[in-house]
Amino acid sequence: MRIALAQLNYHIGNFASNTDKIIHAVNKAKEEKADLIVFAELAVSGYPPRDFLEFDDFIDCCNDSLRTIATHCVGIAAIVGVPTYNRNDKGKRLFNTAAFLDEGEVKTMIGKTLLPNYDVFDEYRYFEPNRKFETVQYQGVSIAITICEDLWNITDDPLYVVNPVDELMKMKPGLLINIAASPFNYKQAEKRKQILCKNAATYRLPLFYVNHIGAQTELLFDGGSLVVDPTGKVRDELAYFEEDFRVYNLHDVVNRISDNEYKPVAKPKVELIHDALVMGVRNYFGKLGFKKAILGLSGGIDSAVTLVLACRALGNENVRAILLPSPFSSDHSVDDAIALAENVNCPFDIIHIDDAYNTFVRTLEPYFRGLPFNIAEENIQARVRAVILMAFTNKFGYILLNTSNKSEAAVGYGTLYGDMCGGLSVLGDVYKTEVYELAEFINKDGVLIPLNTINKPPSAELRFGQKDSDSLPDYDILDKILFQYLEELKSPKQIIAIGFDEAIVRKTLKLVNTNEYKRYQTPPVLRVSPKAFGMGRRMPIVGRYLS
Amino acid sequence: MRIALAQLNYHIGNFASNTDKIIHAVNKAKEEKADLIVFAELAVSGYPPRDFLEFDDFIDCCNDSLRTIATHCVGIAAIVGVPTYNRNDKGKRLFNTAAFLDEGEVKTMIGKTLLPNYDVFDEYRYFEPNRKFETVQYQGVSIAITICEDLWNITDDPLYVVNPVDELMKMKPGLLINIAASPFNYKQAEKRKQILCKNAATYRLPLFYVNHIGAQTELLFDGGSLVVDPTGKVRDELAYFEEDFRVYNLHDVVNRISDNEYKPVAKPKVELIHDALVMGVRNYFGKLGFKKAILGLSGGIDSAVTLVLACRALGNENVRAILLPSPFSSDHSVDDAIALAENVNCPFDIIHIDDAYNTFVRTLEPYFRGLPFNIAEENIQARVRAVILMAFTNKFGYILLNTSNKSEAAVGYGTLYGDMCGGLSVLGDVYKTEVYELAEFINKDGVLIPLNTINKPPSAELRFGQKDSDSLPDYDILDKILFQYLEELKSPKQIIAIGFDEAIVRKTLKLVNTNEYKRYQTPPVLRVSPKAFGMGRRMPIVGRYLS
Repeated sequence: MRIALAQLNYHIGNFASNTDKIIHAVNKAKEEKADLIVFAELAVSGYPPRDFLEFDDFIDCCNDSLRTIATHCVGIAAIVGVPTYNRNDKGKRLFNTAAFLDEGEVKTMIGKTLLPNYDVFDEYRYFEPNRKFETVQYQGVSIAITICEDLWNITDDPLYVVNPVDELMKMKPGLLINIAASPFNYKQAEKRKQILCKNAATYRLPLFYVNHIGAQTELLFDGGSLVVDPTGKVRDELAYFEEDFRVYNLHDVVNRISDNEYKPVAKPKVELIHDALVMGVRNYFGKLGFKKAILGLSGGIDSAVTLVLACRALGNENVRAILLPSPFSSDHSVDDAIALAENVNCPFDIIHIDDAYNTFVRTLEPYFRGLPFNIAEENIQARVRAVILMAFTNKFGYILLNTSNKSEAAVGYGTLYGDMCGGLSVLGDVYKTEVYELAEFINKDGVLIPLNTINKPPSAELRFGQKDSDSLPDYDILDKILFQYLEELKSPKQIIAIGFDEAIVRKTLKLVNTNEYKRYQTPPVLRVSPKAFGMGRRMPIVGRYLS
Repeated sequence: MRIALAQLNYHIGNFASNTDKIIHAVNKAKEEKADLIVFAELAVSGYPPRDFLEFDDFIDCCNDSLRTIATHCVGIAAIVGVPTYNRNDKGKRLFNTAAFLDEGEVKTMIGKTLLPNYDVFDEYRYFEPNRKFETVQYQGVSIAITICEDLWNITDDPLYVVNPVDELMKMKPGLLINIAASPFNYKQAEKRKQILCKNAATYRLPLFYVNHIGAQTELLFDGGSLVVDPTGKVRDELAYFEEDFRVYNLHDVVNRISDNEYKPVAKPKVELIHDALVMGVRNYFGKLGFKKAILGLSGGIDSAVTLVLACRALGNENVRAILLPSPFSSDHSVDDAIALAENVNCPFDIIHIDDAYNTFVRTLEPYFRGLPFNIAEENIQARVRAVILMAFTNKFGYILLNTSNKSEAAVGYGTLYGDMCGGLSVLGDVYKTEVYELAEFINKDGVLIPLNTINKPPSAELRFGQKDSDSLPDYDILDKILFQYLEELKSPKQIIAIGFDEAIVRKTLKLVNTNEYKRYQTPPVLRVSPKAFGMGRRMPIVGRYLS
């Protein structure tokens, strides 16, 4: 049996585009004499469709698409992910389904058993778990079809009380297929490979695995679809961060015969994050039908890295940088920003915010008279910049890119409706220390980001001589504490036991928890770590815990 | 057996306060010779604790609190809601537990079986469903203890494949207790009563039901704890929107003996919404430790109603109204706003935004030269107001109240980082037509909101002669279309079939779906309907469905 894997970039709810892509791949697989083609989980709708799933009309559109696709499956079978109605009289109204298409028809529907409902996943919100286990017979092979999480209960500390593969093994399958929607984070590809290889080896079955690629707002899918032989060795993997399509001979995989030997490509974390962010920006704009980005360029490291990533995603001519010096900006900031804009060759303008800032101060003078300059005046500057940048978006149809990093977002070191504005947060899941790593990576073949931007002490420049370190611990320490709390879910005691100063730990965690209200209103964050702000981290605002 | 019901206002993660409240009620119940006191679901932690539940330290704090509470349960038993570890080797790490405390100890832990995971609920994100059914023996009575959703599968179209009460009935209980966290919407109290009465009647058991009261950010709990006799008749209900405590004689309930007859109080929808919003504002401030609110008062209906609600929640002296006329504001707007501020007797100021607006126009002139006045200039006005209001919050420690309504939020008729700012959206779940109903309700005993504010055509006043109806359908029609789409989940075809104009329907739904990006960044919305924007409605931003 010849099996084609189609790793495609879908668009949520864009049925015309998704269906076209799928049919195009079916036809290509036929040309290449494949017997079976495999698409990803919920390919028809795109993943995650979220509450669109609650609309019958949306499910009906999925069904119509599926039937159209089925008519093209003559002389070839296909496995396609699609949401379908639960026709039983009890349980949630939908199944997360792998449809087996053949002879122009939908032949079998296999439901997903294990529904991830943690971090960014909400599948039990919509779907009833499958409880009926069956394999599909095709060309003399008994195929065990599973959907993403169905293979992930193979651990020492299982999250679910059922393991669907154990159930399927009772039907003695000769082939294991998994269709997935497994989003990227910098650890995920390795973890995924381990789990898949463990399944193949444990059940002594060849495994074909198809993932999504492409970004759906904050969720980035990196592809890396996989073929594993029955000893648990990877035979081949599809591209990362790109659409891909390949055909395999099942016999060769089972018997471990390979044309070209598989060589794993292990990219460093910083390069993975870089590639993921570029794809994230590109797809956000592309899928929303926008071409041009704008951002405020301060001369600091965050906006510098954001600018380079945006230029790589959209083309330098499509990214406009606005330098917005205030009375408190240093000369070198403007120089550094200009140098960068010239290095990347993107359009830029310099707009002084002194007049607008001074006008606000004058307007507020009757009310603020006699009170010292404080965060109110600092924030006015950040907000004046936002008003100007947003005016450009409204006048010319740009999307404003947010340049805040994860460390700032964590401790609330940013101005709501000021520098926290934007349609998309590019670096919101990248700690400050990682932003520096990205800058080094960007500069690896020659200086693009001015060295002064990289070497000077970080500053918001909202008052004279201000440095981030005036109000925050050094980022080297801060980021480590944040990592322990946000990602490792450690208690203050545990973090202090690692060796961090108690006062700094308590202050940091308090800042994290009292700034939930700010993060509630920030733009969607491109997710590159196992724990990003946004849908994957849901916190009360009025809570009082470590706050 | 004498049973006390304690309906309390908890604070998420505020273990000291929650524990104190619970112990205080235990002692009061002892004084009143109760044998058993019942508290709400997850009383110890507050509801919903969201991802705090992922921290072991948080669960340990819950456990510590529970053990402290248990030491006070001598001579009285208590049922208290608390998250606990799942000690089995499979499944999620927690149970949503009803702890039965007696003789100074935790005697039994009963897990919740049915975990709501729809709308605002995410319980399967954290909890393993209970599969072990047992009753608790106490003073000769076999008590079936259930938690909230456990009683809700008693419908013709059951959401779950198990009904825990059916399982518990095998143990022949003599008493049904349900501890709940059932948030308010204007339909919920009636629905809840029906479900509870149906349970009592179906199983022929007396039912004691305890709910939360109080607001946790967007979720408003209305209380209304209930006692139902074995024929399914309500014997008594506790207060709405207030803490309450009462003791009942089980014998009297079983035998339908009542001191004072139960008379249901059916408040009209508008009054329920009014009371819920006042509580929501009051608790948001109180639990965050803030006292004073600020808002922009335009002379229009939304900010007028918000102001009155805020004054009722916080005291008129704690609400500061800022009138921010632009060059496009009409005289009557300022007059109407002043009249209202004087009627409610709150501090107010008039700050003209002409200077700031003109400064921005001048600053942007080199870039916008020759281009017509459009939404860019309109939005500058809204954003200038936001800068001024936010400066006040930063200088004096106010929280800015957002005044947008649900109709505007739905179609994106608002300026991001402008009038969409604020710490809390008071009317974000109230359609424009319902805002008018609230205004009439507020004026029922005398004019507080000027009649001109109520009677003039709605306008954002961002250009000369502008009316909402220039770009939107009349609110009478718009709100009905929105209701069909947002709350009834109807398709365009179905909505058109009701009798609405096809072009208006398609335009409206497109506006809803293309403005997801704006709603992503709005403040938390006090939820008063069965389907509010926020955690209860999760939509993709890059989706393309009806957009």
